[in-house]
Amino acid sequence: MDIAPGTLENAGPFACAWRRFKALHGKFISIVVDFARQAMKLGRDDPRRIIHSLKVGLAITVVSLFYYFDGLYGGFGVNAMWAVITVVVVFDFSVGATLGRGLNRAFATLFAGALGVGVHRLANYTGHKCEAILLGFFGFIVAAVVTFLRFIPKLKARYDYGLLIFILTFCLISVSGYRDDEVLEMARQRLFTILIGGATAVIICISICPVWAGDNLSNLVAGNLEKLASFLVGFEAEYFTNSGDGENKDSKSSLQGYRSVLNSKGTEESLANFAKWEPCRGWLRTFKYRHPWKQYLNIGALARQCAYRTDALHNLLNAGVLTPLEIRVKVQESCGKMSSESSNALKELATAIRAMSPPSTADSHIAKSKIAANNIKSLLKTGLWEDNDLLEIIPTATVASTFVDIVDCIEKIAQSVHELASLHVSFRSADVAVCPKQSQLIQNEIL
Amino acid sequence: MDIAPGTLENAGPFACAWRRFKALHGKFISIVVDFARQAMKLGRDDPRRIIHSLKVGLAITVVSLFYYFDGLYGGFGVNAMWAVITVVVVFDFSVGATLGRGLNRAFATLFAGALGVGVHRLANYTGHKCEAILLGFFGFIVAAVVTFLRFIPKLKARYDYGLLIFILTFCLISVSGYRDDEVLEMARQRLFTILIGGATAVIICISICPVWAGDNLSNLVAGNLEKLASFLVGFEAEYFTNSGDGENKDSKSSLQGYRSVLNSKGTEESLANFAKWEPCRGWLRTFKYRHPWKQYLNIGALARQCAYRTDALHNLLNAGVLTPLEIRVKVQESCGKMSSESSNALKELATAIRAMSPPSTADSHIAKSKIAANNIKSLLKTGLWEDNDLLEIIPTATVASTFVDIVDCIEKIAQSVHELASLHVSFRSADVAVCPKQSQLIQNEIL
Repeated sequence: MDIAPGTLENAGPFACAWRRFKALHGKFISIVVDFARQAMKLGRDDPRRIIHSLKVGLAITVVSLFYYFDGLYGGFGVNAMWAVITVVVVFDFSVGATLGRGLNRAFATLFAGALGVGVHRLANYTGHKCEAILLGFFGFIVAAVVTFLRFIPKLKARYDYGLLIFILTFCLISVSGYRDDEVLEMARQRLFTILIGGATAVIICISICPVWAGDNLSNLVAGNLEKLASFLVGFEAEYFTNSGDGENKDSKSSLQGYRSVLNSKGTEESLANFAKWEPCRGWLRTFKYRHPWKQYLNIGALARQCAYRTDALHNLLNAGVLTPLEIRVKVQESCGKMSSESSNALKELATAIRAMSPPSTADSHIAKSKIAANNIKSLLKTGLWEDNDLLEIIPTATVASTFVDIVDCIEKIAQSVHELASLHVSFRSADVAVCPKQSQLIQNEIL
Repeated sequence: MDIAPGTLENAGPFACAWRRFKALHGKFISIVVDFARQAMKLGRDDPRRIIHSLKVGLAITVVSLFYYFDGLYGGFGVNAMWAVITVVVVFDFSVGATLGRGLNRAFATLFAGALGVGVHRLANYTGHKCEAILLGFFGFIVAAVVTFLRFIPKLKARYDYGLLIFILTFCLISVSGYRDDEVLEMARQRLFTILIGGATAVIICISICPVWAGDNLSNLVAGNLEKLASFLVGFEAEYFTNSGDGENKDSKSSLQGYRSVLNSKGTEESLANFAKWEPCRGWLRTFKYRHPWKQYLNIGALARQCAYRTDALHNLLNAGVLTPLEIRVKVQESCGKMSSESSNALKELATAIRAMSPPSTADSHIAKSKIAANNIKSLLKTGLWEDNDLLEIIPTATVASTFVDIVDCIEKIAQSVHELASLHVSFRSADVAVCPKQSQLIQNEIL
């Protein structure tokens, strides 16, 4: 939609302005269309986002009724607005986040309100001038100390919002108390309206298509394993057809999926923090302890370790320094076996995490891929290469040793998934029956 | 502090209770001492945290003066509390975060207030009952639409807080308007008190020991390069002394530092988002364009790529499958050269980023490490190994090829730092003079 400068010079001022307007108009339209397309894609990708937006609208409308109905309004007066504020601020995408913020807000208001009322009473004994100084001093101390506490990592992870609300409530109560002597009544009303707002948010969040952070975490971890699995299969296909000139670079999407695994730590940790607030429900009831979330984080960390190795493989593929195809073909069978078995193991583990069933065949897949790794090692040892330049073999040797590394990683992941299953009451008996047999299988086949 | 069950049975109930109390008391004391020690460490590690806490206390005390002085209070009445709320919510550790939140809050309040007053006027024309329905309907629509907009990644990164405040203000203004007809006056007062609170927060944040997110980002990226540099030196020392039995596992802290680089993406991105809000100042004035933050993110991404390779090296070191020491010693000189030159290049690049000076000698270090890489390649080619088992050589070959990879990564980082310097007006002339000479140097030495 840009205008060539030549045409502008020849046209009259009106025509010029009209063209400029048309160009701007076109640009505006294209921005709006782009924006709408992006928004529609977001909605299509995860329809829960649309439902969440409607839920927030509903919760605000429900809590607004306090204003519209005279009977309800009378009890709280202008303080009823805290219910609206609470709904807006507390309502989050997942139940865990909403519950966490709601509980943080409620308890922080309770404690800060009590402290504020106490300080107000204390300051009341002194004169009016002294009262202002004392209130200001306490406000300074509480704000400074609690702000510092927000830096402590453990408190920051779970109670950051609560600490913020603590400062807010304490300052509001102690400061407003200077003008308004009904400070106890004010604190009580604030607490009640916040409880009403928080309860509305939590009830609507849980009762209409709830999004559980725990489920999201479990799906994210399982999805990451699946991405690694599809990389391994894609890599094998690419490596044994690629002529090494870098032409096929970045061609397949299956080779790109693992990238999101590399930087998944932050998302996983925040989901685990939200999940800790969620009540025991459904499949979680079958756990011995309430929160196996740490185990999910362990599996996620191991998946990232695996992703670092796949990044090295991907880099090798794109660097264009490959062993000549005729040599690569000699290890194709073993490498293919290794990657397909590893990929099957990962898929099996992902399914096990999603379905909360023990990974029944993953160990045998891992054992088979270890056998394939040993085959490659003996291929390297038996001087298959003697006729060739040692330098040309090194890239393939690197691929093979990285694969062996990846198999090790996957074995650790499988151990972690077994540990997760062993925390899971209903599968404990099945798991104990399956585990030793399979670890014996590995020992027999490998050692 | 646990009590042996035997002793409890033999003692009387009072002695037993006393012991329990002593045990609990001891446990409590140890928790408090632990907590205090952790807090002191946080303060010692970064004294800016203590200063920040005091600044927040000061800002809240200053804004509380509105309540204590009758003249100031008269103008705004109970709405003056919005100033306190704004300070508490807006004041953040870095200037960028504070400014971003302040501007988001101010503009969101302005626009939402205007829309709220407009909707209130519109609803006023209908009857009292119809008004409630209309207001509820508009509240629902605005809350749902704006909540959905918060999912759009670009808006979420910079305007998430503004969108939240938009919903909040719109709902408060349109809903309160139902009871209070002075809605325009209320919107005006809210806006003014928020401006006063925001201005107080921003002025105190900037004027007393300001923490700039831009500086933090630059330091973080430079620090990551330094961590990689110290890993390379530490790895070389470890690799050529380690007997391969895994005994020295995880012994040195220099070998652990790179781990924080692996997961630095989130922190870097949020710092860059904050930095975009910060005004042009000091050394930033010398930039051609105002925001070179994207370039820092590029360097950070390349540093992470390098960290994935170092993770592979670290894993190799701990796996216990090393080439026998007598073979490793043969490549020690070249590998040592490669790691020390790479490490020097990284340190030089880090210094360049910190001091905003062009990296004058980094390119020559990289050139030298490339020469060392070529030396290793020819060592491998000239059949230095003929007497040895091929399988035993592979780990060393893998280390060598990973090192070559790392040198490639560092070269890319150097290019990015040069690009950063070329965006920097005062160094552009110096940079142009230095760059071609050095790239020629590389060409002469390598090709």
